[in-house]
Amino acid sequence: MRVYTDYLVFNTKKRQQFVRITDDVAAIVKASGVTEGIVLVSAMHITSGVYVNDWEEGLIEDFQTWLEKLAPAGLPYKHHQTGEDNADAHLKRTVIGHQVVLPITNGALDLGPWEQVFYAEFDGQRRKRVVVKALGE
Amino acid sequence: MRVYTDYLVFNTKKRQQFVRITDDVAAIVKASGVTEGIVLVSAMHITSGVYVNDWEEGLIEDFQTWLEKLAPAGLPYKHHQTGEDNADAHLKRTVIGHQVVLPITNGALDLGPWEQVFYAEFDGQRRKRVVVKALGE
Amino acid sequence: MRVYTDYLVFNTKKRQQFVRITDDVAAIVKASGVTEGIVLVSAMHITSGVYVNDWEEGLIEDFQTWLEKLAPAGLPYKHHQTGEDNADAHLKRTVIGHQVVLPITNGALDLGPWEQVFYAEFDGQRRKRVVVKALGE
Repeated sequence: MRVYTDYLVFNTKKRQQFVRITDDVAAIVKASGVTEGIVLVSAMHITSGVYVNDWEEGLIEDFQTWLEKLAPAGLPYKHHQTGEDNADAHLKRTVIGHQVVLPITNGALDLGPWEQVFYAEFDGQRRKRVVVKALGE
Repeated sequence: MRVYTDYLVFNTKKRQQFVRITDDVAAIVKASGVTEGIVLVSAMHITSGVYVNDWEEGLIEDFQTWLEKLAPAGLPYKHHQTGEDNADAHLKRTVIGHQVVLPITNGALDLGPWEQVFYAEFDGQRRKRVVVKALGE
Repeated sequence: MRVYTDYLVFNTKKRQQFVRITDDVAAIVKASGVTEGIVLVSAMHITSGVYVNDWEEGLIEDFQTWLEKLAPAGLPYKHHQTGEDNADAHLKRTVIGHQVVLPITNGALDLGPWEQVFYAEFDGQRRKRVVVKALGE
């Protein structure tokens, strides 16, 4: 059995920014030597997420508009009484999801034709990490 | 260690349709020979999902009504400028989730009394796949 | 390869209640002997969830207020025609998620600085279970 761990580091220019990471994950899978198994890709911070969807700029904007509608910034959240101002980021990342598990088959990510992996930052401009852990044989 | 992969194929009659797949997943687990481990069940298309909830027709209708409220069809989504008309399907599948990981214990799915696995199609009437990957011993 | 399974049992005093379970999961991981791998933490009932987010009481209240807005109790859900009154609990648990997969590295949960694991009960005051399954080496 093989288990292999690596980390992706982000420091986005904008507070909210989505970054395609399919190729980064694929490179870690290759380095892992796992040919049959799974890889966990999980945000280690609680104001960012990881999700699988389309690599199309219009849809990415639609996602951001929609998340703002479902979990708006600027409401009088109780969390802000601690001095924080990012409660909406915690909620947005909950909708989009904070982790995915991807299958590895024949030595590569076993993704459908349009599946792309994204890192979704909702409170960036500082150092944040994603853990990538492959296991299998 | 055992790793076993299979695929479920769907071609729903309706554009939006939920299909119970618990027994299909259980059959793949049995074929895998895995007696202790996990099984990943993941939609390979980005307008469909996989989720665990109740096998009760009223609740399934409630889910569909609720998803339509949270992520309505027919809005002027930017994604539609590409010629697509299914942005809402991408959003709906995000709410319901696109994958589950189920425990395998004593050679069978280790589910609670009411847990059932569903495939949730939001843009069907064409061939779509779900990957089912069991691993363990 | 090691696979180890245990269950957490809840019987909350309130119908809706969030319970921090990070330490319970960590103890099971320690008992498993897995030093490199993953652990699945999954609600076995379909009106409760498991999620990772902040251990801050204000934010937990924000989550509950927000879920009530997205999936209100008391609407004329079709599910209630069966005699049930908890359709909103099924929807709320869908938003927050019903399971997480956590990495195990160097013999411990490999979590970011603020990641905490929670059990989210939406229809409690009765016995419910969470399965915790560690696998790796």
